[in-house]
Amino acid sequence: MIEFERSGSRAADQLRPIRITRGYTIHAEGSVLIEFGNTKVLCTASVEDKVPPHKRGSGEGWVTAEYGMLPRSTHTRSDREAARGKQSGRTQEIQRLIGRSMRAVFDLKALGERTIHLDCDVLQADGGTRTAAITGAFVAAQDAVGTLLASGKLAASPIIGPVAAVSVGIVQGVPLLDLEYIEDVSCDTDMNVVMTGAGHFVEVQGTAEGVAFTRDEMNELLRLAEKGITELVALQKQALLG
Amino acid sequence: MIEFERSGSRAADQLRPIRITRGYTIHAEGSVLIEFGNTKVLCTASVEDKVPPHKRGSGEGWVTAEYGMLPRSTHTRSDREAARGKQSGRTQEIQRLIGRSMRAVFDLKALGERTIHLDCDVLQADGGTRTAAITGAFVAAQDAVGTLLASGKLAASPIIGPVAAVSVGIVQGVPLLDLEYIEDVSCDTDMNVVMTGAGHFVEVQGTAEGVAFTRDEMNELLRLAEKGITELVALQKQALLG
Amino acid sequence: MIEFERSGSRAADQLRPIRITRGYTIHAEGSVLIEFGNTKVLCTASVEDKVPPHKRGSGEGWVTAEYGMLPRSTHTRSDREAARGKQSGRTQEIQRLIGRSMRAVFDLKALGERTIHLDCDVLQADGGTRTAAITGAFVAAQDAVGTLLASGKLAASPIIGPVAAVSVGIVQGVPLLDLEYIEDVSCDTDMNVVMTGAGHFVEVQGTAEGVAFTRDEMNELLRLAEKGITELVALQKQALLG
Amino acid sequence: MIEFERSGSRAADQLRPIRITRGYTIHAEGSVLIEFGNTKVLCTASVEDKVPPHKRGSGEGWVTAEYGMLPRSTHTRSDREAARGKQSGRTQEIQRLIGRSMRAVFDLKALGERTIHLDCDVLQADGGTRTAAITGAFVAAQDAVGTLLASGKLAASPIIGPVAAVSVGIVQGVPLLDLEYIEDVSCDTDMNVVMTGAGHFVEVQGTAEGVAFTRDEMNELLRLAEKGITELVALQKQALLG
Amino acid sequence: MIEFERSGSRAADQLRPIRITRGYTIHAEGSVLIEFGNTKVLCTASVEDKVPPHKRGSGEGWVTAEYGMLPRSTHTRSDREAARGKQSGRTQEIQRLIGRSMRAVFDLKALGERTIHLDCDVLQADGGTRTAAITGAFVAAQDAVGTLLASGKLAASPIIGPVAAVSVGIVQGVPLLDLEYIEDVSCDTDMNVVMTGAGHFVEVQGTAEGVAFTRDEMNELLRLAEKGITELVALQKQALLG
Amino acid sequence: MIEFERSGSRAADQLRPIRITRGYTIHAEGSVLIEFGNTKVLCTASVEDKVPPHKRGSGEGWVTAEYGMLPRSTHTRSDREAARGKQSGRTQEIQRLIGRSMRAVFDLKALGERTIHLDCDVLQADGGTRTAAITGAFVAAQDAVGTLLASGKLAASPIIGPVAAVSVGIVQGVPLLDLEYIEDVSCDTDMNVVMTGAGHFVEVQGTAEGVAFTRDEMNELLRLAEKGITELVALQKQALLG
Repeated sequence: MIEFERSGSRAADQLRPIRITRGYTIHAEGSVLIEFGNTKVLCTASVEDKVPPHKRGSGEGWVTAEYGMLPRSTHTRSDREAARGKQSGRTQEIQRLIGRSMRAVFDLKALGERTIHLDCDVLQADGGTRTAAITGAFVAAQDAVGTLLASGKLAASPIIGPVAAVSVGIVQGVPLLDLEYIEDVSCDTDMNVVMTGAGHFVEVQGTAEGVAFTRDEMNELLRLAEKGITELVALQKQALLG
Repeated sequence: MIEFERSGSRAADQLRPIRITRGYTIHAEGSVLIEFGNTKVLCTASVEDKVPPHKRGSGEGWVTAEYGMLPRSTHTRSDREAARGKQSGRTQEIQRLIGRSMRAVFDLKALGERTIHLDCDVLQADGGTRTAAITGAFVAAQDAVGTLLASGKLAASPIIGPVAAVSVGIVQGVPLLDLEYIEDVSCDTDMNVVMTGAGHFVEVQGTAEGVAFTRDEMNELLRLAEKGITELVALQKQALLG
Repeated sequence: MIEFERSGSRAADQLRPIRITRGYTIHAEGSVLIEFGNTKVLCTASVEDKVPPHKRGSGEGWVTAEYGMLPRSTHTRSDREAARGKQSGRTQEIQRLIGRSMRAVFDLKALGERTIHLDCDVLQADGGTRTAAITGAFVAAQDAVGTLLASGKLAASPIIGPVAAVSVGIVQGVPLLDLEYIEDVSCDTDMNVVMTGAGHFVEVQGTAEGVAFTRDEMNELLRLAEKGITELVALQKQALLG
Repeated sequence: MIEFERSGSRAADQLRPIRITRGYTIHAEGSVLIEFGNTKVLCTASVEDKVPPHKRGSGEGWVTAEYGMLPRSTHTRSDREAARGKQSGRTQEIQRLIGRSMRAVFDLKALGERTIHLDCDVLQADGGTRTAAITGAFVAAQDAVGTLLASGKLAASPIIGPVAAVSVGIVQGVPLLDLEYIEDVSCDTDMNVVMTGAGHFVEVQGTAEGVAFTRDEMNELLRLAEKGITELVALQKQALLG
Repeated sequence: MIEFERSGSRAADQLRPIRITRGYTIHAEGSVLIEFGNTKVLCTASVEDKVPPHKRGSGEGWVTAEYGMLPRSTHTRSDREAARGKQSGRTQEIQRLIGRSMRAVFDLKALGERTIHLDCDVLQADGGTRTAAITGAFVAAQDAVGTLLASGKLAASPIIGPVAAVSVGIVQGVPLLDLEYIEDVSCDTDMNVVMTGAGHFVEVQGTAEGVAFTRDEMNELLRLAEKGITELVALQKQALLG
Repeated sequence: MIEFERSGSRAADQLRPIRITRGYTIHAEGSVLIEFGNTKVLCTASVEDKVPPHKRGSGEGWVTAEYGMLPRSTHTRSDREAARGKQSGRTQEIQRLIGRSMRAVFDLKALGERTIHLDCDVLQADGGTRTAAITGAFVAAQDAVGTLLASGKLAASPIIGPVAAVSVGIVQGVPLLDLEYIEDVSCDTDMNVVMTGAGHFVEVQGTAEGVAFTRDEMNELLRLAEKGITELVALQKQALLG
């Protein structure tokens, strides 16, 4: 049981209110605003009819992601990465994670020699931006594939199944699902988990910020993540039907 | 009279539908989503209690701007400037223009040794992003000044008066107000005009893309710009009252 | 009437002494030293038998410009841009302006798939370097075209007509032609105007540094610019005959 | 049971031969060559009597890491990062991981306002370079702390306990400990695990390269990692005694 | 004896016509155009009342140099280093050489805590730009010291004696003084020699471009360099008197 | 005669103990650890079946070098060049020198259209790293050529003869062979000499750090260098036989 109150009286194993808005902007083949509480990430999917050098002539496509935060998406303003002239290590880690997560559910052969670019831009940050980005990017990717199917460029979907992500962590000794910012900064352990719709792991990235965590704690965190991702996958499906 | 039809049956001297949404995101001291038709720019104003080196110890403040486009705000995806490692010449030109326009209506002495950063990020582009950015940034700056006044950090507003901007251009020989993308790419002359609420010029930047323009055409363009800016200033006021 | 004396007892609507020296250096296809009083800019035109990617296979040529200031061309030494590793926003703005101005008088189709590079390097600065650069670059471009005609690579000139530029501004309420540095730093409004030999506008870039300017002031500035550019075009012709 | 033979007839849960050589170079406060089979990483610890800006005046120290691969440490030559002008995302991810792992066992307050830099340079790569780097860096850090204690700059060690790391993965369905390169490139799942001497987790980073992995597989991987790290911590102790 | 004719019927041990023009531009404390035949380098000396970090508080000054070539100073246009975003290895080598050569004749203690920046910009290149730069920079430095003496900021000159430089090389087996471009590209050995007025060596940089050179050839090259530098030092003196 | 004692009671004209270890790492076609006393440089030679743009289609190959120092190869830690995002001027100078020295003994025509990359990485520095690098790189290059001959890719060696390098200098007025760090920092003159096995000069780079040097001193330095290089070439031969 929790010694402190989560905002909105959330239970330890409860997600924040999730909203998935498709067609948020007009130009992209897929454009999704995903909200995990106050965290808002715009995920667009852009289809390009060529592939990076390492895939040229392979008959296979590529799926890749970029991530960015608007300078004042955060509590205090951060420097604009374009102005500083380089992306931080954190940004690169996150966009590599999103890219791998998407590729885990794509049959690149079935995609053919084209690239799907997923751009995940944080409009407002309150913890969990990378997991929101993965969860939203999947919906945007589905929409992009939908336009390829509709136009006859693809005969069958190269998407194998859903993928979604959530953060879990231990705050004051209590394992919690879907950390918001205030919980994230004070947690001992922070773990981002990416799973498929079938309940298998794509990525597990756990870090002890303070005290190292035990095997039992790890087990409990993975249980919370499984619960949250099952719910997120259901919400993705619902959004794609809507 | 126009040989072609503008979208939405717009008259040559008519602005697109303008929407100004304050408080669009929660962290910034000022946060405004401005829409000129399908062009959507998020303008945030962030207050920082220090100034850049050239103002240190001067007793004066500073107002500066940065501009960016999300990679898929445009019809086809553009490279992310943070990933390329530098801002394009166009981006730098635009953010310098926004900064100068804002400083034109600020009494930097009255602002005191603090900086207001205006971040203008294009979520969706359909022509006129820089003029929308200026018009929206002014409202965000007003809100940031409002928080400084409310908290007692400032006793009086350092803002001298309103500033707004609009594009005008000549398409197939016809001078038009507030070009959208399809008009912009086919125009002979493109002019961005920034004016104060008093109807005086802050910036005039006219470029002949194709045929050079005459003095008479210039006069007509300036007349259209004056009309449009008068309306935009009225809309800013209304938004600030709302 | 002017409350202060301009250097050399110049009238408000008078250009500084202009000198145009062709063949200033030996390697370039066009090499012009242009002097507006103490402002000295070396403008070279280099012909290259290929075009940038966006023109490849188009049958059209390209005309582009680069601008730089020697570190001690100015009153106090500025950092060398090559050493800092990037060109300032100001430099990029200026070289984009020069490039557009040159292309305004070039028929790129008639040029064929080749590039003319205009390098404008400021040896000594005393205000108006960008307008001197445009005025000198046109003469260098003419000489480069001359070598293409002489060698038979071109049968007819792709140059449509002359282009020149001058700065105008308002100092202590008085509109002045061709500002030198000391006038430029104290002016309220600064405007760079680029016009064709036919008296039409290619670029108008006016900025209120201090007080915003009225429509009447703008009209007077444009009148001064027209007068100055008419004289500059005559001087270009004379130099090309010499 | 394994369908294929591991090199050197290794069992699935067996580490490669590990060698830890202290004092490998003469200048650094700690200098360790660590070998996991053919993987050789030189880990040096350098003490600096100042801290980065975010720690200045805090009374706390800092521990940080950098990672690099010699261009021909790998099977085919890789570009030199210094020549390309930037570190790859992979390099940044790894050096951030090493830094966090080291800080997990340091009491930064007890370290005082000084920095320990851990440089991990791969002389020869054959899989598991980041886990070898963490395991070796800890020994180098111990030696650096030893010199601080010996010189009287520190009265007590700021190191809380040992930390070591190992990779585990699933190859052809079989969970394996300590992957070498040939196993790494063909594995379905790759996991890097960092643990303390007390058997608690500092980092768990698991990635499904091919098929997503199940909870049971995860459990088995963690069991292998625990076994391997227990052995590595024993080898660190032995090396520090030697 | 020479099998080929040098341009202008130069003898093997003869310098090209040398011209040294002081006061070439108006803003710098020293401004010298130096010409070695068709090679023209503008050397400016700028005095700054502060020193780089490694000299702060030392009571000593600093003398440093930067070097650049205008893009079309050469036979075919070279990329602008400021546009490429970095200085080439060649540029850095040359500016380090110029800086060391100048410091060899400066008493940095006597200079006091100020910096003299020598900017050497090649307006036109025809071989020997670095040696012309050194020879001209010394004259510019003298003029800068002259202004410091005249203004009373220095009581005595910190310059110990003259320094000058020349290139020598072996072309088709013949040792030659002061190579021009056409000789430089076809030479077997190229050597740059920097000497003091007293005839002592400051720098000797000899490179076999083709066949390695013998000790006898080296002796002859050094003899030619000595002869040339003796003449250059005389020309520097004459220019400084003029 | 020397007023001070060299470490290890070395004579003025005596090399430090030299060790050349071939096959130091396993992946490279040539891999040599060379030690000049406490200076240790790992030189690897990598063969690539393509050439840089300027050699494409020429039928000739290319030989090039890169140089780096591990951050703590030196007495105090230096910044990592990959982290700073650029190579220093010193690094570029050195790697250009190594490359030129290697090309001096290669028949690029006989090499065919392939590149040999020589990577010289300093593991431990105690003066003379660039001359050790050249001496070691030659052995690595020989081994790389050996693999090309063994595999039948080359029928005859493109190597014309040996090349080696050594530093010489004047310390407290005494000319010394093969300076170590403590001698290097206090020397008046520092000279790096590269020679072929035939005793001819490839490079001579002498710099007066303090007092300019006379012709007699130069002669004595060259005599020492010749002696040292003769010994180094013998040691290379011996290592290649071993």
